[in-house]
Amino acid sequence: MNSTLSPSSWAMQCTAFDAPQADALRVQSDVLVVVSARGRIEAVIARDDPRWAAQRERHAVAGQLRELPAGSYLLPGMIDVHVHAPQWPQMGKALDVPLADWLQQNTFPLEARYGDAAFAESVYRPLVRQLLANGTTTAMYFGTLHDSGNRVLAEECLRQGQRGLVGRVAMDEPSQCPPFYRDASAQAAIDGTEAFIETVARLPGNAGGLVLPVITPRFIPSCTDELLAGLGALAQRTGVHVQTHCSESDWAHQHVLERCGMTDAHALHRFGLLTRRTVVAHANFLTPADVALMADTGASVAHCPLSNFYFANSVFPARAGHAQRLGLGLGSDISGGYSPSMFDACRHAITASYALDEGVDPDLPPAQRGRHNARIDHVFALWLATAAGGAALDLPIGRIEAGQQFDAIVVDCEAPDSNICIWPGSDSPADVLQKIIYNATRANVAQTWVQGALVHARATP
Amino acid sequence: MNSTLSPSSWAMQCTAFDAPQADALRVQSDVLVVVSARGRIEAVIARDDPRWAAQRERHAVAGQLRELPAGSYLLPGMIDVHVHAPQWPQMGKALDVPLADWLQQNTFPLEARYGDAAFAESVYRPLVRQLLANGTTTAMYFGTLHDSGNRVLAEECLRQGQRGLVGRVAMDEPSQCPPFYRDASAQAAIDGTEAFIETVARLPGNAGGLVLPVITPRFIPSCTDELLAGLGALAQRTGVHVQTHCSESDWAHQHVLERCGMTDAHALHRFGLLTRRTVVAHANFLTPADVALMADTGASVAHCPLSNFYFANSVFPARAGHAQRLGLGLGSDISGGYSPSMFDACRHAITASYALDEGVDPDLPPAQRGRHNARIDHVFALWLATAAGGAALDLPIGRIEAGQQFDAIVVDCEAPDSNICIWPGSDSPADVLQKIIYNATRANVAQTWVQGALVHARATP
Ligand SMILES: [Zn+2]
Ligand SMILES: [Zn+2]
Repeated sequence: MNSTLSPSSWAMQCTAFDAPQADALRVQSDVLVVVSARGRIEAVIARDDPRWAAQRERHAVAGQLRELPAGSYLLPGMIDVHVHAPQWPQMGKALDVPLADWLQQNTFPLEARYGDAAFAESVYRPLVRQLLANGTTTAMYFGTLHDSGNRVLAEECLRQGQRGLVGRVAMDEPSQCPPFYRDASAQAAIDGTEAFIETVARLPGNAGGLVLPVITPRFIPSCTDELLAGLGALAQRTGVHVQTHCSESDWAHQHVLERCGMTDAHALHRFGLLTRRTVVAHANFLTPADVALMADTGASVAHCPLSNFYFANSVFPARAGHAQRLGLGLGSDISGGYSPSMFDACRHAITASYALDEGVDPDLPPAQRGRHNARIDHVFALWLATAAGGAALDLPIGRIEAGQQFDAIVVDCEAPDSNICIWPGSDSPADVLQKIIYNATRANVAQTWVQGALVHARATP
Repeated sequence: MNSTLSPSSWAMQCTAFDAPQADALRVQSDVLVVVSARGRIEAVIARDDPRWAAQRERHAVAGQLRELPAGSYLLPGMIDVHVHAPQWPQMGKALDVPLADWLQQNTFPLEARYGDAAFAESVYRPLVRQLLANGTTTAMYFGTLHDSGNRVLAEECLRQGQRGLVGRVAMDEPSQCPPFYRDASAQAAIDGTEAFIETVARLPGNAGGLVLPVITPRFIPSCTDELLAGLGALAQRTGVHVQTHCSESDWAHQHVLERCGMTDAHALHRFGLLTRRTVVAHANFLTPADVALMADTGASVAHCPLSNFYFANSVFPARAGHAQRLGLGLGSDISGGYSPSMFDACRHAITASYALDEGVDPDLPPAQRGRHNARIDHVFALWLATAAGGAALDLPIGRIEAGQQFDAIVVDCEAPDSNICIWPGSDSPADVLQKIIYNATRANVAQTWVQGALVHARATP
């Protein structure tokens, strides 16, 4: 194996936690994570491996060894598969208004401003910086209709070193989109999407593909059939990622049934929009046939547990979907979700699953209250936020093992504002990880690494 | 009014947010909060009050003026009305095990250790420090059976300046309590409780009553009738606070119905345990008659939304309770709840209310899914965590107004690890408060004040 370690590699000596499968926590204690100059994990050398001492020494002598202090741990970087970038300024605001007002009076007028590149930069620069500070190494973004604003977002990802999947939103259905914020025609939206794919491919500094374009019909109600068919054809021809919303709420689910005569998932499939690189957000009201169809196509669901409570009239049954081979990832859904922290998303995914399992209404008899076997635990939640997201995006990220990109975070349990309280005598490594998932905040994210580059380091008091 | 301002007062110039009622956000912009040397708010002088300038000048000249910087706001201190102090070491751990195991294998063995005062100090010192750092100015604590450990907790509150209501837990029912952790007899528990009331009254430095004792039967299932009746008589005789658990889960609710032939609330009332200073935790399964009884007695419910999801088989209907005049407060329920942050508790209270309102199971038809008019918003949540808690505890805390104690926190939206993103051009003061409630963490708590004393200040990088 030494022959696979490049001479220019560097190494991190650390204890690493990851969740390669939904029910499998992996603890790699005091290992050497060897990273190539290009940011790929070349090896994870166990403490009892005969090569450990020599490799540690070699990297130390070369000044290429980093050692994490006691109380700090390496985790895979957080993968947020559903973020509305232009909604960043209204995160945590206007969550108490009806959905129609939220869209028409708050969200669409805000999104309409991103034709102004200076405004876009004033938002997207802090957005990317703050997501990195929260440990989000990869984000799948909805942008806006504007080539200028979307280009600014892609450039900010490159400049700050975040892995970004950036979508040019397409929406042309006059009955659903306001005149000040919709595509002039289906063809204009298709052309705009194709142009943005070109823009991203030619971005200076993007030869390594850190930023990827995404075909992004907002959701079926806001797109004409012509637009959906055109974007589906583009997806089939180019193979680039696809994102949209699917069967989020009672209203959306019924609307598509009535308009298309079939469910959201089946309609998306008919338009060619369900591919191995498709991520549909929410999907609360998938039928069993929808789940089977999506599993067959390899498309995945962006589970957004926090916004489920606010906008989806229900909770997405993540455990059941996983049992039926449905691909999954975890999304913050900023700003339908109020938190930029994927640790918050993990916690809300657990809470949502408990609510589904137990039910919520004390006036109902227990037998009518919940649907059992719906619970997930903190390991499942970590998997959702990391390895599952990597698989959903068809990218080699989300696990700490050879062959993956070194997209990772250092969690410092002893940070000044830490609420993670470890009791060394009684907490096992698995307990430490559980306490991290339940109480980590941005204040615990000491370092954020993407593709082997340190892209955020917390200021220390 | 000048005559009511003592010569030794100091003043804070700030913008203050509070929620005097459940549906009323109060924004006091650029006011002078005048605080007496003993820590009472003497006046809140509005910017357009003719006395503002002179009072500002007087305090400035005397070196007794503090000005909050832009981006920082004054809020009432957080009041956590349900904390299990001895469970601090297991916060965020063992949440994936069944309740019986959680109690018998994790919680009771841990609680049994607090006869050792050194161990108690090793836990209670960081507990109080970390709750203050999270902005919790008042905590109503369950302690343990041990006079030594409970005394350490009371002393730590005094030493660090937290307003603490400390309960000597009583539990003597052999069928529910393990032999290594139960009172030897009902009389021993009653005597121990009475002794602890004396202990607190005589604590050096507690003349001002910062720490108060609480009569604390764990819950009906773990106490004999003799114990409950004895503690009820003690409550009636002394007038001290009472805390216990009530109708939390299907199991607890049914168990009491079968044992007592009446509901938890009615049984507690029969034993004399429902007083104006009683706080019962959870209370998810109260009947309408229970709610009316509690409202009549002036007893309150500690709503613990986070632990509801994990242990209560349902969500407490907070809005309905409030509409029926039931007193309320908000609790973290550490460690049945995993978070020490009352901001988290606020957010979970909102989430829980949305889950109750909308329902959670997408397989049910919409009409069968939720129970409407259950939602609360961020203002209701702030009220729960502050003014409501103060009223539940019958203490002059929870609001920023004359006559209240100056128990308050400074929230810094621009702290280094802040996820509160304010857009000055588009966020009104009410928007700022909403963004604070949705995204504040411990990292935003710049200062914590109790009874006019600065008891925590965040380290700055
Ligand atoms: Zn969305
Ligand atoms: Zn409790």
